[in-house]
Amino acid sequence: MKRVTPSDIMELLKTAGAGSYISFASGLPDPALFPVDELRLASDHVLSTDGGAALQYGPAEGYPPLREWIAKRLNNRGLRVKEKNILITNGSQQALDLAARVYLNDGDAVCIENPTYLAALQIFDSCAAEYRTVSQDDDGMIVDDVERSLSTDCKLLFALPNFQNPTGRTLSAERRKQLAAILDRSGTVLLEDDAYHDLCYDGPTLPPISSLTTIADTLYSSTFSKSIAPGLRVGYLCGPEHVISRLTQLKQIADLHTGSLTQRIVHWYVTEYDLDAQIEKLRAVYRSKRDVMLSALARSMPESVRWTRPAGGMFLWMTLPESIDGRALLGDAMSQGVMFVPGSGFHQNQQGSNTIRLNFVSAPADQIVSGISILAKLIKSRC
Amino acid sequence: MKRVTPSDIMELLKTAGAGSYISFASGLPDPALFPVDELRLASDHVLSTDGGAALQYGPAEGYPPLREWIAKRLNNRGLRVKEKNILITNGSQQALDLAARVYLNDGDAVCIENPTYLAALQIFDSCAAEYRTVSQDDDGMIVDDVERSLSTDCKLLFALPNFQNPTGRTLSAERRKQLAAILDRSGTVLLEDDAYHDLCYDGPTLPPISSLTTIADTLYSSTFSKSIAPGLRVGYLCGPEHVISRLTQLKQIADLHTGSLTQRIVHWYVTEYDLDAQIEKLRAVYRSKRDVMLSALARSMPESVRWTRPAGGMFLWMTLPESIDGRALLGDAMSQGVMFVPGSGFHQNQQGSNTIRLNFVSAPADQIVSGISILAKLIKSRC
Repeated sequence: MKRVTPSDIMELLKTAGAGSYISFASGLPDPALFPVDELRLASDHVLSTDGGAALQYGPAEGYPPLREWIAKRLNNRGLRVKEKNILITNGSQQALDLAARVYLNDGDAVCIENPTYLAALQIFDSCAAEYRTVSQDDDGMIVDDVERSLSTDCKLLFALPNFQNPTGRTLSAERRKQLAAILDRSGTVLLEDDAYHDLCYDGPTLPPISSLTTIADTLYSSTFSKSIAPGLRVGYLCGPEHVISRLTQLKQIADLHTGSLTQRIVHWYVTEYDLDAQIEKLRAVYRSKRDVMLSALARSMPESVRWTRPAGGMFLWMTLPESIDGRALLGDAMSQGVMFVPGSGFHQNQQGSNTIRLNFVSAPADQIVSGISILAKLIKSRC
Repeated sequence: MKRVTPSDIMELLKTAGAGSYISFASGLPDPALFPVDELRLASDHVLSTDGGAALQYGPAEGYPPLREWIAKRLNNRGLRVKEKNILITNGSQQALDLAARVYLNDGDAVCIENPTYLAALQIFDSCAAEYRTVSQDDDGMIVDDVERSLSTDCKLLFALPNFQNPTGRTLSAERRKQLAAILDRSGTVLLEDDAYHDLCYDGPTLPPISSLTTIADTLYSSTFSKSIAPGLRVGYLCGPEHVISRLTQLKQIADLHTGSLTQRIVHWYVTEYDLDAQIEKLRAVYRSKRDVMLSALARSMPESVRWTRPAGGMFLWMTLPESIDGRALLGDAMSQGVMFVPGSGFHQNQQGSNTIRLNFVSAPADQIVSGISILAKLIKSRC
């Protein structure tokens, strides 16, 4: 814990929950799309038919039928895995934390994209890790940078290839193959975070990097937080049996196991209801909101501003002229009722002061339009 | 993770779940006593009236009304605390893990009772902690030993004063006062695990050590796992605001927050149903089972065997003649359909080979009688 300090972004997000802002800041999915009735019926069913087990301690690895279901589902993503390769976690956040704690001792190096998921940086900080940073372009992380980083001693490569948080970028198919080959050569372990897998809006999601390696150990994490609901806190980690075995020991130490009731609710939901129809519903709404934001940006932003065009996920990344500081802009924006997250916190090395992250799925469409209009005026006044 | 190895006891407990043993081995409460119907109605109510929030991300500290309820409840235990002093965790296991991770860096010393809670030892091992061990007698830990231990550099004192796991012993009122005074003098932080607080069978539970200190920082953990149900994974940690603030950061890193739905189910249950009546029901059944086991032991065990007479909790501790090894006895017992946990795993320093832990709440009364009879014959044959 030596290096962990309070995150001003996390503090900001608390404020965001309290006020009546147009918020592009949060990482929250749209609660109007949660399958509340189905989950209520699932909970009722589980407690009516299997209440004793649903309320009892359970195995650290997780509820076996849910692990089996996940393994089958991941085979459809190209991962050749079985139940024994799956550990159930409290969302993918815990999956990343456990993986980092198993692999990283004080001073070990982890290779990350710059920028990357803020809470992953906090995890690596809590392990007192050193960083090797890799730049990105619109096709995701630069593979030559990765090769250079992994040629030094590096325990873990952390990658978020689909609709990355914070940038919304997707790693191209070609680069996935190149990365897999580099991992096979270097022996570095891959930690692949695929939390946004199901939220693809422009055709199918590309195969995980983990499905393309032949020798390297890979850990693949994902979650039901985006497809079903985050408040259940059910995610998972998938990896070689010997690694899952060590991770299971650590899971047991951390909190014994993920909730017996919530795992059974998720399992009943995915087997008795139509998860794919639920995902299609999410895609339709989120795709439309993304398009509303992209149109609003195209209409109103000055030419000196650039932004990503995410093929999925929840976030869009904006690069302002170098003279504009994202934190200063946030102060002005909040005084006019609009929130977003400045991009610097997602970076190592003090970079990204002129970047910001915009969530395009939380706010209603009309608020997206008016919020972007307010932002555009503020930016123009600073250009 | 360097020092954590698979626990053969944990492996044993898996076996215990599978077979048709008379099990004194597990740490499981009796599922027949879970308030299943009330929790089903609570879940239905929460999802019907507050589904959006119950399925959404929530604050890392936990659901505010539940934190407030817990703070009030803890005031009845003599702890002068408010909502801001409470962090909700996934059972008290996570409370202990977070506390250890905040206070213990590689090589830091923790003072423990010998024997103590196995999974706490695994937590401290995972922090690469050094141990200062304190002996026990029937009044709990020996206070002079504690004073000696804390006179050297020691970051944390871990104590389980009520119905300790594994021994069932209770720290006497007088020793609690002495310990509090030692803590105030030494400045060492107390981590007090009170998971079994509600399971008292012979009069009221004594005041927490944390309620008796005046200067020392103290962390107090407890859980709804014993009073309501463990499968919900809802526990809590209580401490000074500045410590809770650091622990909340670490909780956020570990898994963002404890389940929104399960916290609301617990809160609805404790406010709308009669938790105290539920606890009285548990006490009546468990007290009776304890008495069944104590009577069976008195009837059948040879004079060279000693055991504790727990005033609460779930476990009883047996000391065999020195020539009898608990692990070897377990092999024989399992071949006759009886399981328990050998005591050596709860010890530091290779001690306790002639001790065993017996759970008296899981098995039905008739099985307790026949299981103890089998054990007594095996022990007599080895005396």
